[in-house]
Amino acid sequence: MAGNTIKIGLVGLGTVGMGVLRTLRKNAAVVRARCGTNVEVARVADRDAARLRACGLPPAKCSGSFQAILDDPSIEIVVEVIGGTGAAKELVTKALKAGKHVVTANKALLASEWQGILSLAHRKKVAVGYEASVMAGVPVIRSIEAGLAGNRIQSLFGILNGTTNFILTRMAQGLEFDQALQEARKRGLCEADASLDIDGYDAAQKLAILGTLSLGRRVPAASIYREGIGQIERFDIEEARSQFDYVLRPLAVLKRGAQVEARVHPTFIPTHHPLAAIENEFNALLINTDTAGPITLSGKGAGEKPAASGVISDIVEVARAIRKGDGAGTLVPAAPAAGNARIAPIEEVQSKFYLRFSVVDRPKVLAFISGALGRHGVSIATCHQLGRSERGAVPLIMVTHLTREGAIRRALSGIDASHRIVKRKTVAVRIEE
Amino acid sequence: MAGNTIKIGLVGLGTVGMGVLRTLRKNAAVVRARCGTNVEVARVADRDAARLRACGLPPAKCSGSFQAILDDPSIEIVVEVIGGTGAAKELVTKALKAGKHVVTANKALLASEWQGILSLAHRKKVAVGYEASVMAGVPVIRSIEAGLAGNRIQSLFGILNGTTNFILTRMAQGLEFDQALQEARKRGLCEADASLDIDGYDAAQKLAILGTLSLGRRVPAASIYREGIGQIERFDIEEARSQFDYVLRPLAVLKRGAQVEARVHPTFIPTHHPLAAIENEFNALLINTDTAGPITLSGKGAGEKPAASGVISDIVEVARAIRKGDGAGTLVPAAPAAGNARIAPIEEVQSKFYLRFSVVDRPKVLAFISGALGRHGVSIATCHQLGRSERGAVPLIMVTHLTREGAIRRALSGIDASHRIVKRKTVAVRIEE
Repeated sequence: MAGNTIKIGLVGLGTVGMGVLRTLRKNAAVVRARCGTNVEVARVADRDAARLRACGLPPAKCSGSFQAILDDPSIEIVVEVIGGTGAAKELVTKALKAGKHVVTANKALLASEWQGILSLAHRKKVAVGYEASVMAGVPVIRSIEAGLAGNRIQSLFGILNGTTNFILTRMAQGLEFDQALQEARKRGLCEADASLDIDGYDAAQKLAILGTLSLGRRVPAASIYREGIGQIERFDIEEARSQFDYVLRPLAVLKRGAQVEARVHPTFIPTHHPLAAIENEFNALLINTDTAGPITLSGKGAGEKPAASGVISDIVEVARAIRKGDGAGTLVPAAPAAGNARIAPIEEVQSKFYLRFSVVDRPKVLAFISGALGRHGVSIATCHQLGRSERGAVPLIMVTHLTREGAIRRALSGIDASHRIVKRKTVAVRIEE
Repeated sequence: MAGNTIKIGLVGLGTVGMGVLRTLRKNAAVVRARCGTNVEVARVADRDAARLRACGLPPAKCSGSFQAILDDPSIEIVVEVIGGTGAAKELVTKALKAGKHVVTANKALLASEWQGILSLAHRKKVAVGYEASVMAGVPVIRSIEAGLAGNRIQSLFGILNGTTNFILTRMAQGLEFDQALQEARKRGLCEADASLDIDGYDAAQKLAILGTLSLGRRVPAASIYREGIGQIERFDIEEARSQFDYVLRPLAVLKRGAQVEARVHPTFIPTHHPLAAIENEFNALLINTDTAGPITLSGKGAGEKPAASGVISDIVEVARAIRKGDGAGTLVPAAPAAGNARIAPIEEVQSKFYLRFSVVDRPKVLAFISGALGRHGVSIATCHQLGRSERGAVPLIMVTHLTREGAIRRALSGIDASHRIVKRKTVAVRIEE
């Protein structure tokens, strides 16, 4: 049996690592059937001795350093679930150099070290699996790489961060931002540093990976325009729903074109949009393709078990390929394209906008606002003025036609400077239909 | 360049075949980038000389019989898009025996010849790709086989037939069945024999394939309970929506258990159900898993381009594996499990039911109906009597609790026999929540 067993080394016994261990135990029969062989966790490593004691493997298989895994020639697959870009980068690099296949769930590492990791795997003729790095157990990486291989991908619309989708869902149900955030924390939906979720860093890293795969050119996370959900007020969610039938979702958007659009921001979408049904901590990705049409995948994008599912799908694929006798050569990635995609500056991106002005309740205000927008070429589709006054100001809500972001910004900066008419900073939220 | 090109033979120049030809031409660069090599349609075959003339390939590459493709040793992949189980079966069997990889979009063939085809491919050590056989370009086969490889699949809920989903969508918008069917025909959404769609044969074949993959044991199409949508009346769609917030979808259902449930029938689902948002000719599959949680995939499940996308994804996968030098050995299927899944007889399946009785408007009728249901152990969750009378009968609508189908059938057969009280056959529609 030993010769028929594929050995893996698992580094990191946090939530995801423990999920992988538990699921491999529980579903050993399923995994064996799919791989045609046994998969054995031959060694685990974690700096935390308490975790090692708790993991259920005999002490001889546990170590505080991943070096023991790198040094073990019987281990063919290294699973990196440490996270971050420090020790994880060292481990992945050393494992690839040692000729071992790597499976990782690490979006931060891939978003920043894509070129280095993929090139190294290509040179060393080993596989790198990273299905769990985006949307955990929902097979979006495979779908783009294999399932849609004959397609030119035209655009991606993703709800890639469950925390912010949960918060916006709860706000639509009546909670204030702070209450919703607190509830997300209680449910364990937030990263240790909540700003990684709230400010869109997490979603931008995932979009960088999906965009790079879809375009075949690198989309660096740093080139992606980011806007968080921290400024969103419940009032606008309610108005947009009741007046215009829009719901607010934390969207990651990528559009192919002469220049590529790549951006992460809260976005109003119509209630009949395929992503409008995605609520709470669920994630989804809408892939618009030239041949297969629009394809949507959705599911849980985080959590111990969903992440374990994604990691194990990679382990199975590599183990199956090793078992079939070619050393998993079919899974070796192509050399990554060297160039970056040309990303459009946000000022050149065109969107429709939801605008809420807080204006004094006086004649000629509407003429002033619409005149100022018109001078910058911003055309108004609908306008809606509310009677109720808040500290001497009334809300004036407009939805624009498609407009260049630079024009909106210049128009709003002029309007917001008219303190006798406009009482607070204008709220502007992009719309995708 | 020639040595670096993988040659395919394409048999069948109908809608799908022409879609494959056109897309391979149009997206040649994308395909080359994904495969690491050129893919060339070296020969095509079709019985229809007019199609051969119209396909754009030089006459030397065209033939009326597929034998020319089988005889050409330079062709490594045979693409079967003839459809049906006659010539298609002969072609696939001969191609596999000749040691060629096969890509097929043929659900009927796979549903009936699964064991033979997969065993033969296993013995001959060649690949069989069939992504397009279910939901065309939506990568459901890959997702179950690879993306969810570490999961035990607990249940499947699919909208696998676009024609019936289109008809039910249009009926919910006010059309009668016949009008909706006519519109579906006009839009080219029907198979030549519309009963294949309407009566659930098409969906049952697709569920047979998905079920076999998910359970690792065969689910023969003939063992799947089928009920068509031909009996559905607009009245019930409207009542269930307004009274109970249900929408009607043509569902294919598979549930794991001591016995497996496998059935295709129109089903009421709540408006917040993930499949309620799937309208018109769109298809979707909800996969409930033990580890990744619920995963939904949706998109266009038919049509020239979506089907071509599915076929090409298989071509790319096989070409890529050939190119990497192992002769696509990693893609050779495992020997299929010999046994059939144990399918529960429909009488033993438990569901909630929507019931519409057409009863005389007299006292004690409610007591009679509820008494008769109660004697068979059918418990009522809600009841709703409408005032309006239709040819002397009023509709009495009930939703039951979970109940064994055999019990409902016995109860209804007794009730419907009471001609002095019940004026026409009772409408019964299953509910899934």
